[in-house]
Amino acid sequence: MDTKRIAAERAVDYIQNGMNVGLGTGSTAYWAIQKLGSKVKEGLRIKAIATSVQSEELARNLGIPLVSFSEMNEIDITIDGADEVDQELNLIKGGGGALLREKIVAAASKQLIVIVDESKLVKRLGTFPLPVEIIPFGHEATIKKLSDLGCVPRLRQVDNETYVTDNGNYIVDCHFGNIEAPQDLHNQLNLITGVVDNGLFVKMTRRVVVGYQDGEISEFEK
Amino acid sequence: MDTKRIAAERAVDYIQNGMNVGLGTGSTAYWAIQKLGSKVKEGLRIKAIATSVQSEELARNLGIPLVSFSEMNEIDITIDGADEVDQELNLIKGGGGALLREKIVAAASKQLIVIVDESKLVKRLGTFPLPVEIIPFGHEATIKKLSDLGCVPRLRQVDNETYVTDNGNYIVDCHFGNIEAPQDLHNQLNLITGVVDNGLFVKMTRRVVVGYQDGEISEFEK
Repeated sequence: MDTKRIAAERAVDYIQNGMNVGLGTGSTAYWAIQKLGSKVKEGLRIKAIATSVQSEELARNLGIPLVSFSEMNEIDITIDGADEVDQELNLIKGGGGALLREKIVAAASKQLIVIVDESKLVKRLGTFPLPVEIIPFGHEATIKKLSDLGCVPRLRQVDNETYVTDNGNYIVDCHFGNIEAPQDLHNQLNLITGVVDNGLFVKMTRRVVVGYQDGEISEFEK
Repeated sequence: MDTKRIAAERAVDYIQNGMNVGLGTGSTAYWAIQKLGSKVKEGLRIKAIATSVQSEELARNLGIPLVSFSEMNEIDITIDGADEVDQELNLIKGGGGALLREKIVAAASKQLIVIVDESKLVKRLGTFPLPVEIIPFGHEATIKKLSDLGCVPRLRQVDNETYVTDNGNYIVDCHFGNIEAPQDLHNQLNLITGVVDNGLFVKMTRRVVVGYQDGEISEFEK
């Protein structure tokens, strides 16, 4: 049993006719988009907005009607994965690099539903390195300021090249180890000149759907 | 007498042999770069980093040695213009669209010297519309959040096209009218998902050099 898949399919049960739906990115969101595609084939009427080129292509291939932000007043529900979820339903996201578009869509949504397997549940955020999206210009100075906050920063490389986001920026993976005050850290990071945003999603999540190895599902709500 | 020019030339007096210098952007910074070019020809040894393609080309044509951030540990002095300066030496910048690179360079500098003509001095910031740099993706939702802060936002257009910054982003000119608490507004703006940075430079300026119509110059220091 794929734990990500069972959680993703349960989350899709919340999507109703006429809704505007935000589509997350990554291996868990993949299963949600697949399930939405099946439901659309069966007659579900929704409009969707994607958080990455990858999810957009998947949705298009499955026949899910896609719209842009300008055609949508409000997003009803966004379904997305996460790299870590704490007991307050705060998240670390961005392992896949799409954190900024995911956050823009989540921030414009009435509800964010997060789907994870049990391995993502943590008592405290920070074991997973926190992705921080920064402007390429002057990134050396910006990375120095990140390390001043007490983390070990690492400029993300893929195939020996600096990774570039969909927005043309860099990602710095910041090893904090233990994040005691996610809201404070989130604000400190975003107030550094050169930082665009970071992977902490604080007080944004309404519901978390968790898939377990034994096939069980549990849900947490805020 | 060009008021911008006399202020710019005075500011260049602070540049000494061996310094790393940040070069601003715009019609006032233009005069500073011109003067630096003359001094370099006369033997002044400096290295410079530019905040725009425009200033970089000007400096190169004048024979000013240019380096990138990675070749520079620290910037000693940055000289730049401003659109408004208040009595606390807080600034609004970004009328020319280069606010983010200007701010990254200023934030990495030991000293920011601002040069203006007397028309830029204000009791309170905000008559000049505050430029806010935002991510193109989801800009409709981001602009709505800007207007929720009590301003009239206008997506910057040039020649009937949406203006794009050197960093690939959009600029929203936000008419606040009267900014009572620049630091608070700065933070509120930068904590909006989708906002990259804004044109408020709070507590960043060490010295302001002002040129007056009658040829006088005055200086303010913090």
